[in-house]
Amino acid sequence: MANLGPGRPRLDQRPRRGQTPRAEILDVAGELFTTNGYANTSTRVIADAVGIRQASLYHHFAAKDDILDALLGETVAAPLELVERLRDVPESVAARLYALAWFDVRQLCAARWNLGALYLLPELRTERFAAFRLRRDELRRHYEVLAAAVIAEVAGASVAGVEGLPFRLVETVIGIRSDAGSAPAYVERTIPDAVLRMLSWPGDLDGLRDVAGELLSRLQAD
Amino acid sequence: MANLGPGRPRLDQRPRRGQTPRAEILDVAGELFTTNGYANTSTRVIADAVGIRQASLYHHFAAKDDILDALLGETVAAPLELVERLRDVPESVAARLYALAWFDVRQLCAARWNLGALYLLPELRTERFAAFRLRRDELRRHYEVLAAAVIAEVAGASVAGVEGLPFRLVETVIGIRSDAGSAPAYVERTIPDAVLRMLSWPGDLDGLRDVAGELLSRLQAD
Repeated sequence: MANLGPGRPRLDQRPRRGQTPRAEILDVAGELFTTNGYANTSTRVIADAVGIRQASLYHHFAAKDDILDALLGETVAAPLELVERLRDVPESVAARLYALAWFDVRQLCAARWNLGALYLLPELRTERFAAFRLRRDELRRHYEVLAAAVIAEVAGASVAGVEGLPFRLVETVIGIRSDAGSAPAYVERTIPDAVLRMLSWPGDLDGLRDVAGELLSRLQAD
Repeated sequence: MANLGPGRPRLDQRPRRGQTPRAEILDVAGELFTTNGYANTSTRVIADAVGIRQASLYHHFAAKDDILDALLGETVAAPLELVERLRDVPESVAARLYALAWFDVRQLCAARWNLGALYLLPELRTERFAAFRLRRDELRRHYEVLAAAVIAEVAGASVAGVEGLPFRLVETVIGIRSDAGSAPAYVERTIPDAVLRMLSWPGDLDGLRDVAGELLSRLQAD
């Protein structure tokens, strides 16, 4: 990132970040938390980087952990919304699981900052982030329910706990981005395919991908 | 963890940690880095928690990043050693990949502190940790070479980049430990099984697990 001196005047900032002051604060904080570290980034540094006074920042967020909470919420909001839309579709559980994994990999790759890297912060285990942890648990349970339904259909010998792995495999995008700077485009195919293979789903993945793609287009157009 | 006041006398510490002062510093730092955060933990706090003077700590580690580097090195040392031993064995590539994944999951689960949670620290992307990154890249490449060899044997249509996923799936133990406090024992079976399934390996996993188990016993007894 560019060097961010304290008190940098607002006019120096390119107007590339958010559409609103709140979005701009979140964008700058997302960059600083993921590149300089959460503990190393004060609200003063964030306000300076945005080019606003600290008092203006506090108008939007009362404390640094409120900014982190909002950023974390962004990482699960869209897949949780998709999960709701997936409830009432006629497609098979395999197609729904494929669609969820595909969508989630894509949004984790496309997010401007690799915010999932913040999941492992010790701060997240405190009471302050209990509500976020519940939301992420909810998303994980949806993956597990879909995966368990796929396993039940396959009716092969299933090994304990494998229904927990699709959610985990999707989140490996975070480590890939962290190690390589960005995730290769092929993960949008490789990871959903591997999710189904891992569950010993025996069908044709090309066909399943077509169905999942049509499903996602339809739901996003609704 | 127990409250760690500054200057806590050495006699208060239970003698449960390392066998040597160096090991004790590493153990305490591993706990503090993973529970309080790396940026939040100074060498002063580590020395106090061990019950030694900061000057004594500096005798073993010149700076905090040297402690982190030593801890990170522990997370890849044993699997890299195993990889060397796996070079000259007659077992199939599938059995060798299974054995590596099993061994690595086990050591990531068994390590006293969940040190892999430190992989996502922004500090790790600096030049200071280039040597560690190379060692972890080396381990990743070994996974990829074994996985590519399994795929070549299966000779099915392989999707781009799937050979990169076994290493990633093994490391999901870190997130599981972070979320749940510990990883369930069944991941030692579920993850290596899923690694082979993901690659569309068509054989009998019970039999492969037996072969991999015997291979690991033999190599560790050598």
